[in-house]
Amino acid sequence: MTFSATVLTLYPEMFPGPLGVSLSGDALARGVWSLEAKSIRDHGLGRHRTVDDTPAGGGVGMVLRCDVLAAALDAAAPPSDPRPRLLMSPRGRPLRQERVRALSAGPGVVLVCGRFEGVDERVIEGRGLEEVSIGDYVLSGGEIAAMVLLDACVRLLPGVMGKEASGHDESFEGNLLEYPHYTRPREWEGRTIPDALLSGNHAAIEKWRREQAERITRERRPDLLER
Amino acid sequence: MTFSATVLTLYPEMFPGPLGVSLSGDALARGVWSLEAKSIRDHGLGRHRTVDDTPAGGGVGMVLRCDVLAAALDAAAPPSDPRPRLLMSPRGRPLRQERVRALSAGPGVVLVCGRFEGVDERVIEGRGLEEVSIGDYVLSGGEIAAMVLLDACVRLLPGVMGKEASGHDESFEGNLLEYPHYTRPREWEGRTIPDALLSGNHAAIEKWRREQAERITRERRPDLLER
Repeated sequence: MTFSATVLTLYPEMFPGPLGVSLSGDALARGVWSLEAKSIRDHGLGRHRTVDDTPAGGGVGMVLRCDVLAAALDAAAPPSDPRPRLLMSPRGRPLRQERVRALSAGPGVVLVCGRFEGVDERVIEGRGLEEVSIGDYVLSGGEIAAMVLLDACVRLLPGVMGKEASGHDESFEGNLLEYPHYTRPREWEGRTIPDALLSGNHAAIEKWRREQAERITRERRPDLLER
Repeated sequence: MTFSATVLTLYPEMFPGPLGVSLSGDALARGVWSLEAKSIRDHGLGRHRTVDDTPAGGGVGMVLRCDVLAAALDAAAPPSDPRPRLLMSPRGRPLRQERVRALSAGPGVVLVCGRFEGVDERVIEGRGLEEVSIGDYVLSGGEIAAMVLLDACVRLLPGVMGKEASGHDESFEGNLLEYPHYTRPREWEGRTIPDALLSGNHAAIEKWRREQAERITRERRPDLLER
């Protein structure tokens, strides 16, 4: 059972892109996950394969048509497909690490990438798309957002990071940011590695790391401590 | 004066990747912005161009060495370089649209992409790197996060979206999510376009959109209304 990702996009040539390199690319080559990028334009209308039209009520930009997107969705993922259908959108629920963990434990995802001003609201309702946001900023389209979601999921799949690095001691586990890291050299430009880390005392090291993670979270992201 | 982006990475071959396509790719080709991806490994140590070492105090994974990363930074962006130096990191301050706007109005960015467990803390302090997070999840590296930041900035550069779509009527402007969009056909699978949008009454359309934006924000992201 592999994690199966289908991406609906106007720019299938963007994929796998960075996902074809390094950790996620190795896992893709080994069949730990699969990725297909489907062109929405293949379901466009008429000779020009039109996918968008002007917004009802006026205004700038173009809106992706509901009939075109629904046809693309129905062809790529029939109603029996058990994978969640997510629309990458700044209006969506913010993606968090706990959701990433849940998605990576499932059968995969169907990701819809919007472009232009947006997507006709009726296809969101009619096909039960869940809007997901990767952050409080606006992108030119959903493609790089889809890559973010996939990269975050894939690294958690069994066998991708190796058993020694299961992702337990990192940011957002226990609602804490990660503690600071140090490595050789022992001194660099007059800056040294904190004594506690060089003590060889495992309990003291754990205590220092815990305290640092709490301090950094308190200073930078007190909102995480209230979740 | 173009927006100039320098990315320090262990995977320069990932760039421009999706940034070479569509809106950002067209702008890159027209010289509206520039992008150079520099390999950190070029500054690695010894015959094997080593860039990382085991964490002080023990633990899994590897840490990017401060001396190697500092050498890469110093070569790519001397102290006189006015561009902000950002480290893509889940421990950073969350990126928001207002910061994107500020960055896109400046000379560009120097982006450092971490990999492995993290980066030696001393290079963050010693080179004044500002940690920036694109969201509350963990990626396999900073590269796709850098693409998110660049895509968000580039679309706001003059001449990229065209003057008619200056990005004022979209999510996070006025701390609101965007209103729903509709386009042809007028009816689809029994779902119709809201009457207000078909009224031709500009004031009524504006009022409907404003109310919808407020409703959606209240339902999904009440935290935005308190900012």
